[in-house]
Amino acid sequence: MSARQYTDQLQKLDTPFYFYDMQLLADTLAKAVAEAGKYGYKVHYALKANFDPRIVAAIRKAGLGVDCVSGNEVRLAIESGCLASEIVFAGVAKSDKEIRYALGQDIFSFNCESLQELEVINALAAETGRTARIALRINPDVDPRTHKHISTGQADSKFGISYTEINEAIRSLNRLPNIRIVGIHFHIGSQITDMEVFGNFCVKVNKIQQWFVEQGIELKHLNLGGGLGVGYNDPDGKPIPDFAGYFGIVNRTLETKPGQTVHFELGRSLVAQSGELVTRVLYTKQNAAGRQIALVDAGMTDLIRPALYQAHHKIESLTGQGPLQPYMVAGPVCESSDVFAKEALLPEVKRGDLLTIRTAGAYGSAMASRYNLRDLPRSVYSDEL
Amino acid sequence: MSARQYTDQLQKLDTPFYFYDMQLLADTLAKAVAEAGKYGYKVHYALKANFDPRIVAAIRKAGLGVDCVSGNEVRLAIESGCLASEIVFAGVAKSDKEIRYALGQDIFSFNCESLQELEVINALAAETGRTARIALRINPDVDPRTHKHISTGQADSKFGISYTEINEAIRSLNRLPNIRIVGIHFHIGSQITDMEVFGNFCVKVNKIQQWFVEQGIELKHLNLGGGLGVGYNDPDGKPIPDFAGYFGIVNRTLETKPGQTVHFELGRSLVAQSGELVTRVLYTKQNAAGRQIALVDAGMTDLIRPALYQAHHKIESLTGQGPLQPYMVAGPVCESSDVFAKEALLPEVKRGDLLTIRTAGAYGSAMASRYNLRDLPRSVYSDEL
Repeated sequence: MSARQYTDQLQKLDTPFYFYDMQLLADTLAKAVAEAGKYGYKVHYALKANFDPRIVAAIRKAGLGVDCVSGNEVRLAIESGCLASEIVFAGVAKSDKEIRYALGQDIFSFNCESLQELEVINALAAETGRTARIALRINPDVDPRTHKHISTGQADSKFGISYTEINEAIRSLNRLPNIRIVGIHFHIGSQITDMEVFGNFCVKVNKIQQWFVEQGIELKHLNLGGGLGVGYNDPDGKPIPDFAGYFGIVNRTLETKPGQTVHFELGRSLVAQSGELVTRVLYTKQNAAGRQIALVDAGMTDLIRPALYQAHHKIESLTGQGPLQPYMVAGPVCESSDVFAKEALLPEVKRGDLLTIRTAGAYGSAMASRYNLRDLPRSVYSDEL
Repeated sequence: MSARQYTDQLQKLDTPFYFYDMQLLADTLAKAVAEAGKYGYKVHYALKANFDPRIVAAIRKAGLGVDCVSGNEVRLAIESGCLASEIVFAGVAKSDKEIRYALGQDIFSFNCESLQELEVINALAAETGRTARIALRINPDVDPRTHKHISTGQADSKFGISYTEINEAIRSLNRLPNIRIVGIHFHIGSQITDMEVFGNFCVKVNKIQQWFVEQGIELKHLNLGGGLGVGYNDPDGKPIPDFAGYFGIVNRTLETKPGQTVHFELGRSLVAQSGELVTRVLYTKQNAAGRQIALVDAGMTDLIRPALYQAHHKIESLTGQGPLQPYMVAGPVCESSDVFAKEALLPEVKRGDLLTIRTAGAYGSAMASRYNLRDLPRSVYSDEL
């Protein structure tokens, strides 16, 4: 199920655009909810992955909570009809204005990332006589075996409260009456496909939880963050990630206390495979190094992951046929980094061909810019064709 | 002349915002025009560097031409009152719609980047009986001695017509009656501070021009692109780039023909030092590696150069005092790459301090995104305070 089966309809549309397979999205969300439900786990959607209105509507319909990382995201979730009681507000540097808004909405929990943030939320909650529910974001210092730019759990990171600060955080709770610790939160990175990493992570969470028990602190919630990866190299091989394996290894390894709930924040794994960036070939040429180049009308302004993270997205031709040849696929933006692939294998590419850049439903449109004054990419949905 | 002298006024404003020193901008533009004028050179502003309306107005007032890289940029230049006869449309993958619009405006010239583009512009010009003025973008294959991501003149690049294709391009001219070659265009890269690179580049341009003369093609214009760098490490040391040295070495090395005009496309060197990104410290903390961290309210969504190019911007405190200490300065975005500096030297940083990220007038606001649903950064101008 991909853009390919809609090629006839898509060929008539102005390019570039994000194509969303709404059936695959619904199936993916249903599978995630079902596998998490086996163990009573609660899944939150990391809204930063994609805030397209129809994606958000599908998330709400599937009954997921929402993980927000800005006041604007909290506002979008609320205004989209998501329940405040299922909204988590994370983020390393929340402004006073954002905190006040989220307090006013009485959201489920703030994931707090520093001692100073605890003090600020306490003071802002006190202004209106509220008590804020807090989860401490603990830096688990797990090596996530993944790309350095998207690994967020290591020691020398801006994220979370370090081990050395936990003690002080606990002591500070007594003098901060307008916050209440209801849980701990972790995030070990992103695009992790080795399930053993999650198992090792749970072993570490068990130790940290034990430490909290020893301090006499009862944790109502454990929030294990996200990190489950998707198959960028083979989007059709396993379009729905291995939610069974993911929640299963957590269930086998994590030691929960009676009555404790376990939360997850998944983004990429829920939406990446449902989205593709469809683009038209404007020109072909050969450069001085002899490389064949297909110049397309989508650029790094539409999908920045290749330029920013050297990320690989599989590229396919929707209209070409014949033996595969290597092509540099590059966009119109005046930057050397505006290249989607140095050597995509494609059938002979001609002006007017439609190409699709797969697995672009997460961190695609959400990161779009208007650099070079380009228009923001549009969305096309399979169920509206 | 920087944000520092306006600290009192800036402290009262909501952060983050881009601060523009409009006097420095005017002085920089005047100096560039004056130095270029010594040799009759024409300077175009590379609009992609910053399309803030007040910046564009200053450019127009200073009498510069405009280098555009999208149809939307051509439209903005026209609607801002810039003369169509001084607009160049460059870009590796112009769409039919963009080309038609620019043809309709009768712009000065299209910088063409492939044989196929010549054919397409010829066909689109023929539709309305026009003749399009064309400059061939030649890949000079000069090693620009600069960062790989912003070096655009090398052999294995998406840019320009390679040497091997020039012959075919020349032959094609006879069968393309609706285009007229008026010049050749080069761009060797960006942020080049070694004047010798420009001298060597001109030697190469001389050889290429000689080759065109031998083909019986008269070039009315030579467009040497841009590339002049600025001092990111020491913005106050030389706030106005060495335009005298830059145009001087070109004048000493480039061999022009009688009546020939020489054009330049400068972006960064015209606007970078006039802009700063002013941000407030929200939290301070220490991570598990013992590093002091200042968490600020500006992020990679406001200024992506550090995350995208590992670019260095000098960071200063507008409000702190005392001995300098190393701080990681990081933004609120949920990405490990949202770090402006790993070790900025700053006086003790406290919550509420104002920091300024210098040399941010080019490729700052122009590359902003709404990732994490953040607001786009505002602009504050020195002459409106």
